[in-house]
Amino acid sequence: MIKIVVDCFGGDRSPQANVEGSVNALSKFQDLHLILTGDEKTIEECLSDKKYDKSRLEIVHAPEVVGVDEKPTDVIRLKKESSMIKGIKLLRTEDDIAGMVSVGSTGALVSAAMLRVGRLKGVIRPAFCPILPTMNGGIVGVCDSGANVDVSPLHLVQNAIMASLYLENVYDVKNPRVALLNIGTEEEKGDDLRKKAFQMLKETEGINFVGNMESRDLLTGKYDVVVCDGFSGNVLIKSTEGACLEMLKKLKKDIASRLINKIGALFMYKMFMQEKAFMDYQNYGGSVLLGTSKVVIKGHGSSKAIAIEKCIEQAYKMELSEMSEKIEKALEKYEDIIIE
Amino acid sequence: MIKIVVDCFGGDRSPQANVEGSVNALSKFQDLHLILTGDEKTIEECLSDKKYDKSRLEIVHAPEVVGVDEKPTDVIRLKKESSMIKGIKLLRTEDDIAGMVSVGSTGALVSAAMLRVGRLKGVIRPAFCPILPTMNGGIVGVCDSGANVDVSPLHLVQNAIMASLYLENVYDVKNPRVALLNIGTEEEKGDDLRKKAFQMLKETEGINFVGNMESRDLLTGKYDVVVCDGFSGNVLIKSTEGACLEMLKKLKKDIASRLINKIGALFMYKMFMQEKAFMDYQNYGGSVLLGTSKVVIKGHGSSKAIAIEKCIEQAYKMELSEMSEKIEKALEKYEDIIIE
Repeated sequence: MIKIVVDCFGGDRSPQANVEGSVNALSKFQDLHLILTGDEKTIEECLSDKKYDKSRLEIVHAPEVVGVDEKPTDVIRLKKESSMIKGIKLLRTEDDIAGMVSVGSTGALVSAAMLRVGRLKGVIRPAFCPILPTMNGGIVGVCDSGANVDVSPLHLVQNAIMASLYLENVYDVKNPRVALLNIGTEEEKGDDLRKKAFQMLKETEGINFVGNMESRDLLTGKYDVVVCDGFSGNVLIKSTEGACLEMLKKLKKDIASRLINKIGALFMYKMFMQEKAFMDYQNYGGSVLLGTSKVVIKGHGSSKAIAIEKCIEQAYKMELSEMSEKIEKALEKYEDIIIE
Repeated sequence: MIKIVVDCFGGDRSPQANVEGSVNALSKFQDLHLILTGDEKTIEECLSDKKYDKSRLEIVHAPEVVGVDEKPTDVIRLKKESSMIKGIKLLRTEDDIAGMVSVGSTGALVSAAMLRVGRLKGVIRPAFCPILPTMNGGIVGVCDSGANVDVSPLHLVQNAIMASLYLENVYDVKNPRVALLNIGTEEEKGDDLRKKAFQMLKETEGINFVGNMESRDLLTGKYDVVVCDGFSGNVLIKSTEGACLEMLKKLKKDIASRLINKIGALFMYKMFMQEKAFMDYQNYGGSVLLGTSKVVIKGHGSSKAIAIEKCIEQAYKMELSEMSEKIEKALEKYEDIIIE
């Protein structure tokens, strides 16, 4: 049985979406056991009209909710009765719980995971690895997308190793092509961090490092793993999302502005719906925090039930493929290195 | 008379596009004088079928061409007879020449401009400021998009001041809203560089600093100037371009894949053409290098005649609005500061 905690509060569609996604995941995986944290009565109400295997779902009452703008340190100190911190506590104290899914405040979740759950052996700092669809039907993982903004070349090497294992084990990408995000493809490009990381990545065993990449190639399908610091990774992800979203919005507006466009759009209705689904992050789950001793998945704040279900699936597959053991093995040689 | 050098070689469509764009700019601005650098015979051939005011166009023969992958230091040292370096030399030696437009190697152009043309008084390091269209019909300037990758908070403050003046004077944007690119909008977000820059920007007089921005808001029209280091600025620009381009490509492919989509697209032909033009960087000129003592504009490597014409127009307007004097005046107080 794989046990996963679902923090049922803190998102725009919580707790309804969280509960519905949980129930759907339960019916998908027969050896999955879920622990829902949050206000017991509210969760029970959400469950009341649903059919599910009651022996594989439990509720842990947590009356408080973490707000988006709360200071992470305050959350950890003062919000002990919140659905997020109670979940983190379960992760810390119960050996048989594999991981946790939350759509609450990113800052609070990262801090709580780092401080209360801890890192796997050899990991200097955990890093986020969201998955994006590429335009040729594949996927690409970006690591790190915002967990650490001050990094050394070794952080980037570890991001490469962890993300490579993740794509290989959870998404069945064989021998993932790992690229270093840079401002040009030539070896000597970029700042000192990138130049040093490039040399180290070239010599890193067990990964398929293919060189520098420019951000305009993120969606082309040329690469499977993009390695970057948390700042530029965040810019990369959010500007890509932003550009796609704004373009779709503009198209929609322009279609609505003239009758002939509306007629044309009717013919293309199915196609537009497919484009929308393709672009919708709801279908790609959440962002896994690679390197913590238990699996931690951060879903989008506006996650619907389908996104929650995918997040749970990610956590489930992480555990099933023994990602933690594999990361520790791959990072064995870094166990004695102390940075920061 | 405003004199501008046009480097006629080094782009994918050079020299034809460069020459055609030059001729078009000449007919647009009656007090414009252009100096075309490059192989004289080839340029003359390109000019042979064109009508233009011969008294306002001269050719300076330069038999060599700078390749895209050549090392900037080698270019400056060894390619003295190239169209780019000869142009830079003219900029350096002829007082009455206001600026230069080039679509050649960015690295070589930046290095040559820094070393041979120099900086305006008070400027620590020049920075690129490309202009992008926003989805509500406006524009946004991103400064820096790749000239400096190792920066201090003061660089960011100077980028803000220079880009603000640029948008105000060349694009008539009143009191431009300046935002700091960050990984969240809250004041305390980001790395040390961003935190320090935020405080300094808040206290900088003469700019309209509106706080941090997330990259997903680049195209929404919420901001007029985005301030960033050259690394993340480069990621921002290129991932936005990449996402838009890849999306258009996907749409095109999906339309072609089914007859019903093709029929629909016929109705929407005009709209799609407008979207394409809207997205086409050819219509937005080049990226100005703010802070050099003479105007330097870097056009896209694949610039067509229209893009060259726009680049010349940018240089012309920079000179007309006395940008150099305005930047020096705004940065007066930094004259004695020495960094790096």
